[in-house]
Amino acid sequence: MVGGGQLARMTAPAAVPLGLGFRVLAARPDDAAAQVVPGTVVADEKVLADLRDFAAGCDVLTFDHEHVPTAHLRSLEADGFAVRPGPDALVHAQDKGVMRERLAAAGLPCPRWRHVDDPAEVCRVAAGLGWPVVLKTVRGGYDGKGVWVARSAEDAVLAEPFRAGVAVLAEELVDFRRELSAVVARSPHGQAVAYPVVESVQADGICVEVLAPAPGLPADRAAEAQRIALSVAAELGVVGVLAVELFEARDGRLLVNELAMRPHNTGHWTIDGAVTSQFENHLRAVLDLPLGDPRARDPYTVMVNVLGGDLAETYPSYRHLLARDPGLRVHWYGKQVRPGRKVGHVTVCGEDLYDLRERASHAARYLQGDIDE
Amino acid sequence: MVGGGQLARMTAPAAVPLGLGFRVLAARPDDAAAQVVPGTVVADEKVLADLRDFAAGCDVLTFDHEHVPTAHLRSLEADGFAVRPGPDALVHAQDKGVMRERLAAAGLPCPRWRHVDDPAEVCRVAAGLGWPVVLKTVRGGYDGKGVWVARSAEDAVLAEPFRAGVAVLAEELVDFRRELSAVVARSPHGQAVAYPVVESVQADGICVEVLAPAPGLPADRAAEAQRIALSVAAELGVVGVLAVELFEARDGRLLVNELAMRPHNTGHWTIDGAVTSQFENHLRAVLDLPLGDPRARDPYTVMVNVLGGDLAETYPSYRHLLARDPGLRVHWYGKQVRPGRKVGHVTVCGEDLYDLRERASHAARYLQGDIDE
Repeated sequence: MVGGGQLARMTAPAAVPLGLGFRVLAARPDDAAAQVVPGTVVADEKVLADLRDFAAGCDVLTFDHEHVPTAHLRSLEADGFAVRPGPDALVHAQDKGVMRERLAAAGLPCPRWRHVDDPAEVCRVAAGLGWPVVLKTVRGGYDGKGVWVARSAEDAVLAEPFRAGVAVLAEELVDFRRELSAVVARSPHGQAVAYPVVESVQADGICVEVLAPAPGLPADRAAEAQRIALSVAAELGVVGVLAVELFEARDGRLLVNELAMRPHNTGHWTIDGAVTSQFENHLRAVLDLPLGDPRARDPYTVMVNVLGGDLAETYPSYRHLLARDPGLRVHWYGKQVRPGRKVGHVTVCGEDLYDLRERASHAARYLQGDIDE
Repeated sequence: MVGGGQLARMTAPAAVPLGLGFRVLAARPDDAAAQVVPGTVVADEKVLADLRDFAAGCDVLTFDHEHVPTAHLRSLEADGFAVRPGPDALVHAQDKGVMRERLAAAGLPCPRWRHVDDPAEVCRVAAGLGWPVVLKTVRGGYDGKGVWVARSAEDAVLAEPFRAGVAVLAEELVDFRRELSAVVARSPHGQAVAYPVVESVQADGICVEVLAPAPGLPADRAAEAQRIALSVAAELGVVGVLAVELFEARDGRLLVNELAMRPHNTGHWTIDGAVTSQFENHLRAVLDLPLGDPRARDPYTVMVNVLGGDLAETYPSYRHLLARDPGLRVHWYGKQVRPGRKVGHVTVCGEDLYDLRERASHAARYLQGDIDE
C-alpha cells in the first residue's frame, strides 16, 4: 500500500488473519502506518524509481490516497506491475472534471456543472444555475479543501483557485436534506459487494459523524444509492473499495458528489459494525480473493471522528473514557494531536440510535478536550 | 510480549486501534508474530540478559506462553520491570503441583490428586481413587502433552514421566459430560471481567472446537464457573487474561482442570464474537487500562481450529472457501503447515448453532484437506 496514513494503518490489522504479507511505502518513518507495519519502506511516492523499487517486492500495489501521479501509475502498469485500482479508474478520483464527464456520459446522476476558466465564466454559469455556485478545484481537494461557495460575482472574483491559476469547475449548490455515502468493493473479475448506505454528518466540509445505516432511508432509496455506486465501480473498472458520496436532494434526487477509490472515512464503522470490514474487503478485492459479507451486525452503528483539540496529552481522558463506557471502540491513528486534525475515531454498535449518538459524540468531544466530564 | 507464536500475532492487531506500542521477543525472525510486528527482537527467552534487554524498551512485559523460567521473572521484577502476570501468579500456570495445592487451600474445586514419585505410589493412590488414574507431568505439559491415563499398575510402570525422571502427579479420572472454559481478564488494581463460559470440544487432548456460550448450560452453572475463574484470578493475583479449563462432571461438580495465564485457544472466538476480544482485554489489563465489555455479540459463536493436514499449499482451498461462505472469518497464523499443527482457526457467528457448527467444521476440514468439496 502506497501511503502511510491512517487508512494503511487500519488496513494492516485486516491483513494479519488473512495471512497476507502487507507492506507500506510511507513518506516518514513515524507515519501512522509505519508504526505498526514491519518492513515499511520510507520513500517518495512522487518519484517513479521509488515506486518501482517498492512495487518490485509486492504482488499487488494499492493506495491509501489518490495523490500518486497518474503517469507514474501508467508506467508501473506498462512495466507489468499489478496496480489496483489502475490509473484508468483512479484518475476519476483524482480529477473531478474527468469524473463528471464520465459519469454524465454513463447517465449517472450528478449536480449540473461546467468547467470555468475565470470569474466571468462563473457569472455566465450562474445565469443558468442561479447563485450561489459551488467552485471546486479539479485536482487535489479533499475534506472540504478545494471547495468554495460563491454567492455573487464578487465572491467569484475573490475565489482562491482563480488567483492560484488552477483548473476549476462550477456546480449547482444542491439543496440537500443530508449527505449519504455508498461504499462498495469490487474485484478484478467483477465480483462486487455493497455496504449498507450511511448518513455522513458534515461540519465545515468534514465528515464528523457516520450513522449506519442512514436512519429513515427508504429501502428503495438505499437500493438506488447502492446501484449508483455499483454502476460507478463497474463503469470505471474500479478494483478495491469505492466510496460514492451522494447528496440526498430535497427535490428527491440522489446526486453523486465525490468519489474515493480506497477505504473511506464513511466506511470506518465497518471495522466494528460489519461482518467484513472495508479494509479487509479492500485487500480481498485487490488480491482477487472472494469478497466478504458486507452486512451490518447490529441495527445501528455510529462512528464519530476524533479531531485534535486542546488536549496535547489524551491518555488521561482516554483512561477515563474506557472506564465510563466499556462498549466503546476507540481507534487511534498514532498521530500527533494538532487542532482540527483527524487523530482517531470512536464507534459504538447497538439498537438505540439516540443513545449511540450520545455515547459516540460524548466520547469524541471528551477526547478532544471540548468537555471535561 | 515474550514469545512470537500465534497468541502474540493475534495480540498485535488489538494494539493498533488502542494506540499502543507493541513489541515482541521471538525465537526466530519468521515466527508467527515476527511477521506482523515491527521491531521484533529475535532473542532467547531462556537467557536473562536477553529478557532484560528486551524489557528495557518496554513499559510492561507480558507473555504469549508460560515457558519463561520463574527465576528470570523474579530477577526482572527485582530490577524494577513491570512483569504481568507476575512470577508469583504465573508459577501456578507453570507448575501443576503448586497450582493444585494453592487451589485446594483456597477451597476451589479440583479433581482429587496426589504427588507421586514412582509407579508403586500410583498403585497406592489408585487404591483410594480407583483405576484408571490420570498421570500428569508437573511442568511443561500443554495440548494433551504430558498427560497419560494409567488403567493398571502395568500402565503406571510403563508411563513415560517416570522413565524420564520428572515430577508427576496423579489425579482421579473425572467422569465428565464435557469440558468448559471460563476466560476472565483482571487488571493490577483488581478490576475483572468474565467472558461467557464456553464448551471446549476436545480430540486427543487438543481443543478442536469451541461453542460460545456452552449450549444448554444453566445460568447458575455458568455463573458458578465464572465465579470460580474470578476467584482463581483474585486468589493468585493474576494480571491479564486467565483461562480456567473445567470439567463439567456427570455427578454435577465443576472441577478445575488446567489454568493458562495468557490469551487462550478457548477465547479465540472473542475476536469476532465479543464486543472486546480477549487479546484487547489482555493488553488493557496488563497496562492497567479499564477493561472492555466481554459480552457476546450474537446468540452463538463457533470456532474450529485448523490443523496442518495433507495440503501443503492451502491457498487454492482458501479461495474456494471464501467464495463458498462470505460470512466465514478465517485466521491464519503464518505457520508452515505440518500434520497436526495448529495453523489457524475459523469462526462463524449467528443464531443457528447446528448451522454454525456445520459451516465452521466444514471450513476447517476443507482447509486441512480432509474433504475435497
